[in-house]
Amino acid sequence: MDKSKTFRELHQPGRPLLLPNVWEFGLAALLVAQGFPALGTTSLGISAATGEPDGHPNTRAATVDLAGRLSRLDTAVSVDIADGFSAEPDAVADLAAELAGAGVAGVNIEDGRPGGSLAEVDAQCALIGAIKARVPDLFVNARTDTHWLTRNPPAATVAIERAKAYAGAGADGVFVPGLIDAAGIEAVVQAIGVPLNLLFLPAGHPFARLAELGVARVSLGSLPYRTALAAAVETARAVREGRPLPSIAPPGYGEIVALLPQH
Amino acid sequence: MDKSKTFRELHQPGRPLLLPNVWEFGLAALLVAQGFPALGTTSLGISAATGEPDGHPNTRAATVDLAGRLSRLDTAVSVDIADGFSAEPDAVADLAAELAGAGVAGVNIEDGRPGGSLAEVDAQCALIGAIKARVPDLFVNARTDTHWLTRNPPAATVAIERAKAYAGAGADGVFVPGLIDAAGIEAVVQAIGVPLNLLFLPAGHPFARLAELGVARVSLGSLPYRTALAAAVETARAVREGRPLPSIAPPGYGEIVALLPQH
Repeated sequence: MDKSKTFRELHQPGRPLLLPNVWEFGLAALLVAQGFPALGTTSLGISAATGEPDGHPNTRAATVDLAGRLSRLDTAVSVDIADGFSAEPDAVADLAAELAGAGVAGVNIEDGRPGGSLAEVDAQCALIGAIKARVPDLFVNARTDTHWLTRNPPAATVAIERAKAYAGAGADGVFVPGLIDAAGIEAVVQAIGVPLNLLFLPAGHPFARLAELGVARVSLGSLPYRTALAAAVETARAVREGRPLPSIAPPGYGEIVALLPQH
Repeated sequence: MDKSKTFRELHQPGRPLLLPNVWEFGLAALLVAQGFPALGTTSLGISAATGEPDGHPNTRAATVDLAGRLSRLDTAVSVDIADGFSAEPDAVADLAAELAGAGVAGVNIEDGRPGGSLAEVDAQCALIGAIKARVPDLFVNARTDTHWLTRNPPAATVAIERAKAYAGAGADGVFVPGLIDAAGIEAVVQAIGVPLNLLFLPAGHPFARLAELGVARVSLGSLPYRTALAAAVETARAVREGRPLPSIAPPGYGEIVALLPQH
């Protein structure tokens, strides 16, 4: 199976790929069993699971390690590499090549930088270009953090400018988390010429509405991770306080074990 | 703070320590914020998270790594080392010393062996004795899998024999997962002379009842891990199918980030 080709074909405007974001193997295996044809990773999940700041270079090794483990599954995997863990195009291309070699189908690279600034457009394009030059088949999803980090000029304008620049540098798709108004979504879809990825927000549009608006990919971001933690904490609190357990039925021990390789 | 001493003192028959079992840092940090004074780890969680069979020697490094990260938190940590990942007393003592050096307060070592057999009593006592000889202050909780693996003779009889042997070899407490009938619990509490640890079971006694029966420690085992996965899978399915998200409110992104160190 050519996972990169399959993954690329799953990006259909109007019939979006729903990409659950994972941070560990067991969940990924359960999602594959539930028919999800592709999975992303979440930098927050990987970072918090290891006790490091979100997207910190210290999480590079854990990110690569997880990618290798997920690639054993019968699903396409896209890896969140945050800002690439380096400002050097060669180093970011090295990482992309390492991930592609491990079997991943795509990466996400973002222009938000620690402290809340946006990278210079040219510098970000250099990172994207370096990845595509090294591993042309890898699906590069360029995330722009305009809607999280920009106040003025209007975020939609900046998002469209950046999306076009990133697509020009070779990006296969663009991710605009925080873009939420219907007219803005349609405007970005029309303007950018590559598949648009949005973040699902519990208070925002349902998945079916995002499809109608022409979105090609919908990510869950850190929501599954945060919900997982909440359920585990509530389990412990409920036992302590003599309250009913969370109503969601956990898989049995044997069901988890059956998902794991037997050496 | 002497975490081993604190941890030991938390084992009070009739007023048991509730020990949530974790497999990653973010959950541990949230539980500490919720006032849990001690945490265990779960071998199933660590194994499934990394895509390895439960308790396999391949998970030794991940177990040690997690222990080091959890030890940064203001809580006592007990590490599930499965069967010790080795049949050699010296190797198991090495592991215990490594964990104690990383700051953990206790370990769990079990007599169940791959394939569903029980270790020979003398061999298991040799592992326990080797740990206590090397790191006397480490709280060693000896798990006996009699109730999961033994059919005949009666499991309670075997559990008491083994518990006494393990306590004689230096174990500070005994864990009998699967022991569930009230009379059996009271009999084991009376017989063994060290704190009794039981596994909380959703269909079994509430925590308060286990306290009345004289239990000194109640573990959640893999239940939080399995519930966490269920909540994450349900999040992804609910978005895909246009259903409401799980009712449990996830912590916000910022709430998770605030739990993580800033380098």
